[in-house]
Amino acid sequence: MDAQARRRALRLVTNGMFVMTARDGDHYGVATLTWLSQASFKPPLLMVGVRPASNVFQCLTRSGFAAVHVLGADQQEVALKFFSPTQVTDGQINGEPFTDGVTGAPLFPRLRAWVECRVVRIVDAGGDHAVVIMEVVEAKCPGSFEPLTVAASPWVYGG
Amino acid sequence: MDAQARRRALRLVTNGMFVMTARDGDHYGVATLTWLSQASFKPPLLMVGVRPASNVFQCLTRSGFAAVHVLGADQQEVALKFFSPTQVTDGQINGEPFTDGVTGAPLFPRLRAWVECRVVRIVDAGGDHAVVIMEVVEAKCPGSFEPLTVAASPWVYGG
Repeated sequence: MDAQARRRALRLVTNGMFVMTARDGDHYGVATLTWLSQASFKPPLLMVGVRPASNVFQCLTRSGFAAVHVLGADQQEVALKFFSPTQVTDGQINGEPFTDGVTGAPLFPRLRAWVECRVVRIVDAGGDHAVVIMEVVEAKCPGSFEPLTVAASPWVYGG
Repeated sequence: MDAQARRRALRLVTNGMFVMTARDGDHYGVATLTWLSQASFKPPLLMVGVRPASNVFQCLTRSGFAAVHVLGADQQEVALKFFSPTQVTDGQINGEPFTDGVTGAPLFPRLRAWVECRVVRIVDAGGDHAVVIMEVVEAKCPGSFEPLTVAASPWVYGG
């Protein structure tokens, strides 16, 4: 296989940008991620590629719940915050104020759309990310907006 | 859960548009789909939401291989062709000329980037689509181009 061709082709796969959160007791995990898609209408399922070594993966595995926020096109600075390890101080995670969702996952009120999810299946298919399949059990999205995409960002994740 | 909020939030999940193909002997399956993301760098894996009743799902299940083409922003008419059931006539599938890939999956030379894949895992997580996890084993992508996205198309698939 031509590795350059593979890299170019996979970087043409369009993705949005999301902030995923989970909490296991007083242990919090938050990460910006891009490998996410819906996977079923009924029940509403998402599939997400998550690094097994990440805090958010450990928290969602232990608690069985996670939340996913959709970043707006004007929220690159929020994406950037969660490239760094998770730090909780004074009601903020990495400087972003949060509240508790009904599932226990932290929610960021500054982000304009989110879903809370119950973890249904975690698949290790031999890759460097696990495939986490989750059912949407709660949602908030007061209005529509333009979502942030990887293509419109300064970053690349794929290949 | 507020079903309208869930629908709005899930429709903010950014997806590209792809044509997936598979062949089982002289049985062909081709479909336009959108629920697709990379799921690992090493090995390079994709995860794809595919309806179990579709021809393409039956062919990839039986053969163990499938190809995914990335549609260009100017190729809405190709996307449209594969909303219809698969019909093979005179070296064309639904009017689109094809050749055989190394995996046996049909390839469309008019599409500018594709990957051929080996099916690694098919996950039934209780949804109306299966999660198909595949390893990229061959790729062609001579240059870059603007990919077609659901957001830029006349269609909606999600919610």
